Amino acid sequence: MSGVSTYGQSKSDLRVLAFDVFGTVVDWRSGVMREFAAIARERRLTVDPGAVADDWRRRYRPAMDEVREGRRPWAVMDELHRGTFREVIRKFSMEALTESDIDRLVLAWHHLPPWSDASAGLSEMRDLYILTTLSNGGMALLVDLVHGGYLPFDCVLSTELVRSYKPDPRVYQLVPSLLGVRAEQVMMVAAHADDLAAARGQGLRTAFVRRPQEWGTGRVKDPDFPVDINANDFHDLAAQLGA
Amino acid sequence: MSGVSTYGQSKSDLRVLAFDVFGTVVDWRSGVMREFAAIARERRLTVDPGAVADDWRRRYRPAMDEVREGRRPWAVMDELHRGTFREVIRKFSMEALTESDIDRLVLAWHHLPPWSDASAGLSEMRDLYILTTLSNGGMALLVDLVHGGYLPFDCVLSTELVRSYKPDPRVYQLVPSLLGVRAEQVMMVAAHADDLAAARGQGLRTAFVRRPQEWGTGRVKDPDFPVDINANDFHDLAAQLGA
Repeated sequence: MSGVSTYGQSKSDLRVLAFDVFGTVVDWRSGVMREFAAIARERRLTVDPGAVADDWRRRYRPAMDEVREGRRPWAVMDELHRGTFREVIRKFSMEALTESDIDRLVLAWHHLPPWSDASAGLSEMRDLYILTTLSNGGMALLVDLVHGGYLPFDCVLSTELVRSYKPDPRVYQLVPSLLGVRAEQVMMVAAHADDLAAARGQGLRTAFVRRPQEWGTGRVKDPDFPVDINANDFHDLAAQLGA
Repeated sequence: MSGVSTYGQSKSDLRVLAFDVFGTVVDWRSGVMREFAAIARERRLTVDPGAVADDWRRRYRPAMDEVREGRRPWAVMDELHRGTFREVIRKFSMEALTESDIDRLVLAWHHLPPWSDASAGLSEMRDLYILTTLSNGGMALLVDLVHGGYLPFDCVLSTELVRSYKPDPRVYQLVPSLLGVRAEQVMMVAAHADDLAAARGQGLRTAFVRRPQEWGTGRVKDPDFPVDINANDFHDLAAQLGA
């Protein structure tokens, strides 16, 4: 709960909660595993769906970094996923998969299940704060997640709007610049310390949400710097925010 | 109901409904009149609130055109409203108004009442289609309207994202480009023929919604070109869309 007192000093001034999505709002691992397991049965593959999901996800940050650092042209997350999944295919010798299977798997990221507390917790916070996404997912992908998950966001913001990826500072500046508030009136909510560190560097407040099942391990690595809020789930976050 | 048959031919392919907001979803005239009437009482002004609202609104298109045509730098709608209201003050000799009164009036556009059928009608359409705004209002303004009106949009898109105004073709291209659909999978919904004409020019489908009280006159000027749907309100639109 480090930093709660700092937060409390200007609580009434907080206007916008900006949510990371993958791992924070939705459970990418279960969603990808489920789709992969269905396809694996059809193709008679005996590869562990959890290992595939985890390996695919680990290849995501390096691909984004290539774009962010200008080593490859802008590409939305779907395109990055398509490219990195070819590497996963080689690693697990899954050449039996067809192009249509790959399409299905890339599309699975558009229909990931929200964590069980996400929709209700967001509803609790919605009356007091403006809720937006702030995610590496492309606009189309995020809109599909918001729509399919009945997630009560007021706004969808994606790093696509600056054609870069986290932790590019321009990503975090999107929220104050488009929503007409000062940086300190925005709180970044994420299950990942690196996202919060970058948000903090741009003057946003920070809320860490513990998602011990993001990688299926039950373990969480708390940020090693002070955050304004450290919450166990969205209900706890709502309660700490006075909602 | 012109064009309904054309629309029906590929009905299942329609994915996104893009809504104009001022006049189509929200009742700018009543909202502005109410705020102005309250301020006029405080300042002992005897100016007709309807005349002020209508005059202010008529100055909006020329101001946007200046930006769109590059005759003045980019400015969000709030800034245009602030500038055009100074002209309204001169016209109606309302020099008694203070800067804080002007702030209140500019902000009134962030809290306009939705038409009575808007929220429920959108909810009816939401299960079958992705719902986005596509408005000249800035992102902050639109997010306030969506939030305050409990409007179940999946996404907020503003002409601010291309730093221009309707009928700039880039405005209409925002929807297919950001939401990952083809232009013909998008239907522009508006109470204004010129908006629909521009959308049609970019390959979007068109739905005209009759809003006879937009200017308080009870009169509607139907488009003089074929639209895919001509609806009396959002419930009628939902019904014609099979929702």
